[in-house]
Amino acid sequence: MEFPIETRRHSAAHVLAAAVQRLFTHAKFGVGPVVDNGFYYDIDIGRPVTTEDLDAISSEVKRIVKENPEFVREEMGIDEAISLFESLGQTYKVELLHDLKNRGTTKLSEEESADIDAEKPDTVSVYRMGPFVDLCRGPHVEKASQIGAWKLTKVSGAYWRGKVENPQMQRMYGFAFATDAELREHLLMLAEAEKRDHRKLGSQLDLFVFSDLVGPGLPLWTPRGTVIRNVLDEYVWSLRKAKGYERVEIPHITKKDLYERSGHWEKFKDELFKIETREGHIFAMKPMNCPHHTQIFARKMHSYREMPQRYANTTMVYRDEQTGELQGLSRVRCITQDDAHVFCRRDQVQEEMLKIWEIIETFYGTVGFGDLQVRLSFHDPKKIENYLGTSEVWMSAEDALRNLAKEKGAEATEALGEAAFYGPKIDFIAKDSIGRTWQVATIQLDMNMPDRFDLYCVNEQGEHERVVMIHAAIMGSIERFLSILIEHYAGAFPLWLAPEQVRILPVADRHIEFAQSLLAEMQTADLRTTIDDATDSVGKKIRNAEKSKIPVMLVVGDTEMEGGKLTVRRYGKEDQEMALQSDLIQALQEEIRTRK
Amino acid sequence: MEFPIETRRHSAAHVLAAAVQRLFTHAKFGVGPVVDNGFYYDIDIGRPVTTEDLDAISSEVKRIVKENPEFVREEMGIDEAISLFESLGQTYKVELLHDLKNRGTTKLSEEESADIDAEKPDTVSVYRMGPFVDLCRGPHVEKASQIGAWKLTKVSGAYWRGKVENPQMQRMYGFAFATDAELREHLLMLAEAEKRDHRKLGSQLDLFVFSDLVGPGLPLWTPRGTVIRNVLDEYVWSLRKAKGYERVEIPHITKKDLYERSGHWEKFKDELFKIETREGHIFAMKPMNCPHHTQIFARKMHSYREMPQRYANTTMVYRDEQTGELQGLSRVRCITQDDAHVFCRRDQVQEEMLKIWEIIETFYGTVGFGDLQVRLSFHDPKKIENYLGTSEVWMSAEDALRNLAKEKGAEATEALGEAAFYGPKIDFIAKDSIGRTWQVATIQLDMNMPDRFDLYCVNEQGEHERVVMIHAAIMGSIERFLSILIEHYAGAFPLWLAPEQVRILPVADRHIEFAQSLLAEMQTADLRTTIDDATDSVGKKIRNAEKSKIPVMLVVGDTEMEGGKLTVRRYGKEDQEMALQSDLIQALQEEIRTRK
Repeated sequence: MEFPIETRRHSAAHVLAAAVQRLFTHAKFGVGPVVDNGFYYDIDIGRPVTTEDLDAISSEVKRIVKENPEFVREEMGIDEAISLFESLGQTYKVELLHDLKNRGTTKLSEEESADIDAEKPDTVSVYRMGPFVDLCRGPHVEKASQIGAWKLTKVSGAYWRGKVENPQMQRMYGFAFATDAELREHLLMLAEAEKRDHRKLGSQLDLFVFSDLVGPGLPLWTPRGTVIRNVLDEYVWSLRKAKGYERVEIPHITKKDLYERSGHWEKFKDELFKIETREGHIFAMKPMNCPHHTQIFARKMHSYREMPQRYANTTMVYRDEQTGELQGLSRVRCITQDDAHVFCRRDQVQEEMLKIWEIIETFYGTVGFGDLQVRLSFHDPKKIENYLGTSEVWMSAEDALRNLAKEKGAEATEALGEAAFYGPKIDFIAKDSIGRTWQVATIQLDMNMPDRFDLYCVNEQGEHERVVMIHAAIMGSIERFLSILIEHYAGAFPLWLAPEQVRILPVADRHIEFAQSLLAEMQTADLRTTIDDATDSVGKKIRNAEKSKIPVMLVVGDTEMEGGKLTVRRYGKEDQEMALQSDLIQALQEEIRTRK
Repeated sequence: MEFPIETRRHSAAHVLAAAVQRLFTHAKFGVGPVVDNGFYYDIDIGRPVTTEDLDAISSEVKRIVKENPEFVREEMGIDEAISLFESLGQTYKVELLHDLKNRGTTKLSEEESADIDAEKPDTVSVYRMGPFVDLCRGPHVEKASQIGAWKLTKVSGAYWRGKVENPQMQRMYGFAFATDAELREHLLMLAEAEKRDHRKLGSQLDLFVFSDLVGPGLPLWTPRGTVIRNVLDEYVWSLRKAKGYERVEIPHITKKDLYERSGHWEKFKDELFKIETREGHIFAMKPMNCPHHTQIFARKMHSYREMPQRYANTTMVYRDEQTGELQGLSRVRCITQDDAHVFCRRDQVQEEMLKIWEIIETFYGTVGFGDLQVRLSFHDPKKIENYLGTSEVWMSAEDALRNLAKEKGAEATEALGEAAFYGPKIDFIAKDSIGRTWQVATIQLDMNMPDRFDLYCVNEQGEHERVVMIHAAIMGSIERFLSILIEHYAGAFPLWLAPEQVRILPVADRHIEFAQSLLAEMQTADLRTTIDDATDSVGKKIRNAEKSKIPVMLVVGDTEMEGGKLTVRRYGKEDQEMALQSDLIQALQEEIRTRK
């Protein structure tokens, strides 16, 4: 029988718990949900889990799978379940059951309620597997051997229910897949991902740095990293300029009044960096740019002839993220957005969104993400109170997005509850060179912000006509995008993106003068070129250049000085080529121009 | 007899006070210092001063000047002076005298102590002029008629001693010059300056806007204003790139640790925007970029071969300015700096400073400030405790600057007490098109920050060698620089800087199609061009374009469509010219390229 992968993973969590219970009879169990590629279980054995423990648990897991016990479901009333888990000493389960009884599932977190069926709040189900019994909504595989291929991976500390005042438990992670081949592939991918880790490459290639004095989540960009940022940003700007965008600029702070009006104050209070001025006013650092941009649009009356207004602005936004959630460039406190907002009439929405979609296709095609998946992120109709605006406005906006995807012939999936709080989005999902998927660009339609800020144009009849806004970041967070791009290219950027495009390697001191005149010519041709005039051997110089993943290496020795041709090595290629200097420059310029 | 202008102005303040006393016998006097171009006097008449009052005061002033009373100096002990002013009911003067007696001049503000001679703290002098008597250090003119040419200008409210809890007084301002011609010239300049007021032009030309929701001191830049900012910034960058600079990028916040190390926390505590994070850490928005840049330099070991490191970074800094001190773009809370820092060895300082000096000369020459004055801003040796570092370090740094100015053949003045707290500066002062002077660029030598952050390179001997830093903004604050530049050009920017370079004016509807094909060709040639296709007459269109100060207007009618030549009007010129389209495009491109 084919079991869904979630079922397999959740069953694996039970087997893990059963194995722990055999080894640590007094173990108390928290929650054990399914996560990406596997599962975890929060378990309290009264002390940290050691590597030896983990080996023993792995062996015990194998034993259980071999024994192949059945998963047996049983339903009972909440009070009966409470008695059962009390008798087993499972105090965490008892706490969850009491909470459920007193307050319903709404007060439980997503992980905590995973084991409870919201449809039958007075009844709970438990699953038994041999002597092990667990509070669980199911479903499960029938027998332990049906889970598939799995592997325990790591343990980390986790507070019960995520609160620092609660006892610390041990969170044991595992991967689980239907087949050995899938597991093997995943492990291989992880090994490759680790080699490509952008934090490691960022330091090795000297792209960015964190400083203890500046603080976590606040990357500083070196000259090399800044080149990549600027080249990407200028590329996006060139695509936008061709579609009629104009650039604007805004301060990074504002009185809180702006966010009270926009709704961000209420919605993002916790994540806003707040400032009290010496005069006692409350300011905030911007977490988004749209409210500022509305104030540029609202500075004057716009005739319908001037619509749309398209504002582009690469600028930083700030989020008061918790230290524990920060991660390399993937999650930072200061995010550079290549942001843009289009203010347009309703009948211009489709055309403007198409323009953005074209920019996204061109841009992502160029950086090697040709095949984007499309997701329509809509509101959750069951939780309309979490969003700005009425159901009608949402339905109409979502219809517009659906039609657009249809017109583009995109196979779009729809995701309820994934919208921004002010409007629905089209999200684009890229698959990187080792098969991981990442949400990248997004186009958001916003019919609410223009209402809040009373934004209008004067139409053909001389009336005030409400406009709509489209939010359209291409890279989104440049920091996060670079974390993806660095790993996608494993740091070996194509020529047009490489911070150092050409390195000249003189063989001996007597070649340095020639190398320097070559350097000057390459720089005049706007090729980012350096010279390695250290006293190392040419072999060492080549190895250093390879380590820095420089796309083009020019070895300069007697032959090159006398022969009129240059020896050209390309990164990652064994063969060298000979080329006339002028031909080489022209070829490299063309390669950069076309962003190959 | 020739009296110094300060003497004339201070005497004018006495005559003003005497006139007020004649009209308002119970008037009480605060302080009446000399300011740029004139003087003011803070006076309490128990109610606001009306326009009629001001006319009456002006007439009384004229009467006194005609009567031509003498200024008579008299010295007395503090206690005697207290009795005298008590008997006159001059409670503010009495308060100042008590403070002087109890605490000496050091506790008085600069304005408050202007009338008191710090050298003779137990004696004060008073000046009598007819029945009017004032506490005053002098000197004064001999007779009222010797003051020269003067004019009362305005009145505003001012709290006694600048404290909101004190009584509100009336601050009456006047201009005073030695001759009528000088006064007239100053008034003419002011009238011209008012016409050029960057706040007025900023709105008329649609360059920037302030929003009540965002708050005062936080300008938002429209598409047009952003073009000017970017064109200027790209020009500065092109000059820097040619001198070997590299760009870096930094977050706008930091843990306070960075500023505790740099000394900014102690020195600029009040002006820092401070942030408390949700985790209770104290962050600050950056008021300067140097501390962040040190962290990029410090990321790795630098060999002497890699020195200098030159980091350029156009980015915003923030100051918690008081609302009352904000003014248009001249003083804002969010300042964009075209900042740069050079990390170099001591023997590279002169060459690196020369490079910056050359950039400054080129840049300011291009924007019409060819003749820069040079000021060496040094520390005040009497207040060494206000600066970082030892006297020896300061003397040596200042000597380097003195030598540099000598080598450049610049006539430099030396200004004690004008240095930054971490090092001496070379300031450049520009004279604008209506004769006003502005401090613009600055080069700062810094031997202290590298010590605080332990910045070094590895020299030829393999030893750690302390480096020095050079701070080098070209425009400085782009906001303030633009306030100067807008007024300098009276908003009529040269072609290369103009946000809209060319406007096409079709005469009638039948010319619009041709105008649009022309528009496309101008845009392809990278000329910032628009089309005015409103239904106005061509005369109205020309007037609108002149009002927006568009450098080039192309009138397109039957003649132009058929004749193959375009009619070209340049802003501010009466004559039109005829030109072939290709010639015109080439000529305009050349004008932009050379920034004429």
